[in-house]
Amino acid sequence: MPDSAIDHLVRLLGRLPGLGPRSARRVALDLLRHREQLLTPLMQALEDASEKVRECGTCGNLDLQDPCGICTDPKRDRSLLCVVEDVADLWALERAQVFRGRYHVLGGVLSALDGVGPEDLRIAALVDRAGNGELSEVILAMNATVDGQTTAHYISDRLKEGHVAVSRLAHGVPVGGELDYLDDGTLQTALKARRPL
Amino acid sequence: MPDSAIDHLVRLLGRLPGLGPRSARRVALDLLRHREQLLTPLMQALEDASEKVRECGTCGNLDLQDPCGICTDPKRDRSLLCVVEDVADLWALERAQVFRGRYHVLGGVLSALDGVGPEDLRIAALVDRAGNGELSEVILAMNATVDGQTTAHYISDRLKEGHVAVSRLAHGVPVGGELDYLDDGTLQTALKARRPL
Repeated sequence: MPDSAIDHLVRLLGRLPGLGPRSARRVALDLLRHREQLLTPLMQALEDASEKVRECGTCGNLDLQDPCGICTDPKRDRSLLCVVEDVADLWALERAQVFRGRYHVLGGVLSALDGVGPEDLRIAALVDRAGNGELSEVILAMNATVDGQTTAHYISDRLKEGHVAVSRLAHGVPVGGELDYLDDGTLQTALKARRPL
Repeated sequence: MPDSAIDHLVRLLGRLPGLGPRSARRVALDLLRHREQLLTPLMQALEDASEKVRECGTCGNLDLQDPCGICTDPKRDRSLLCVVEDVADLWALERAQVFRGRYHVLGGVLSALDGVGPEDLRIAALVDRAGNGELSEVILAMNATVDGQTTAHYISDRLKEGHVAVSRLAHGVPVGGELDYLDDGTLQTALKARRPL
């Protein structure tokens, strides 16, 4: 019989992505069982993050400073801009250490179903950045979903008037992927975009 | 590139049960994106729970008071004691509203592999409770796992000298279960424990 304080905690934990009622209960119990090792440090980390972490006004990344560490890094190529849907995508590219330019986080994708229009995303700011003369190429790194690709097309249209090259990530067989396990769409794309050897 | 404060938060979240590195990142981002609706309430709930919730000295349940609400509830049958491995199991039984006696939380199961012996569990306290003359029956509600059943047998041996009846939960086909999907062990148990109609 979880009393009110535990119940409230379980309900809040259950609102986190990926946690259902059962896993929320498990997490709450685990936190209450390991207060010194888990609950107290987590409370401090949450407070710390809540106080210190802010959104970068330039690119939309989350960092302790505004503009963020990536935007102000002098070693990064200022002529390359990679547009991503979300901070999580930015983190993924940074983990892979494959891109040394700067980023622009849209904060979502266009979606007629969810009522997300261009004014809900950081698209105007992107058009501004693309027009400031510093950029030579904008790489659209949207997810390969319908909404992601719609957004990429919309942005590429908006950037047409400017003088920056616009590119998108290649689609095809993921490295390590086996043809037998891939969906038809990926196979078709990979075949159509085949490269001479 | 998660900075130190975010990184630290992600690492701590990743130590919660059921959360891997990827889901921990997702949770951290979600928290930072919805500060008003999620991060702040969660921080308060954690603090609240951390301050107020304590372990019941009698049964091991988690509650705002010690002894807990179940132990002090006058409407509960004081002659029945249900022994569970964990507070989560107590909650499960309370959600089902099928038991109106009191509980005893062991805090785990005996496990030679994990080095958990009788002295690591609340078994001595259980033997004390069983000997105080108030109880007529002790119901062992361990999980139907090898360790759970070993623990049940050990406890039943320890309680043999007393004058309380010791029982365990029935094993068999779960309600709604289809024979075709059940494992051999369950089928065998259900067959052996068949009841006259």
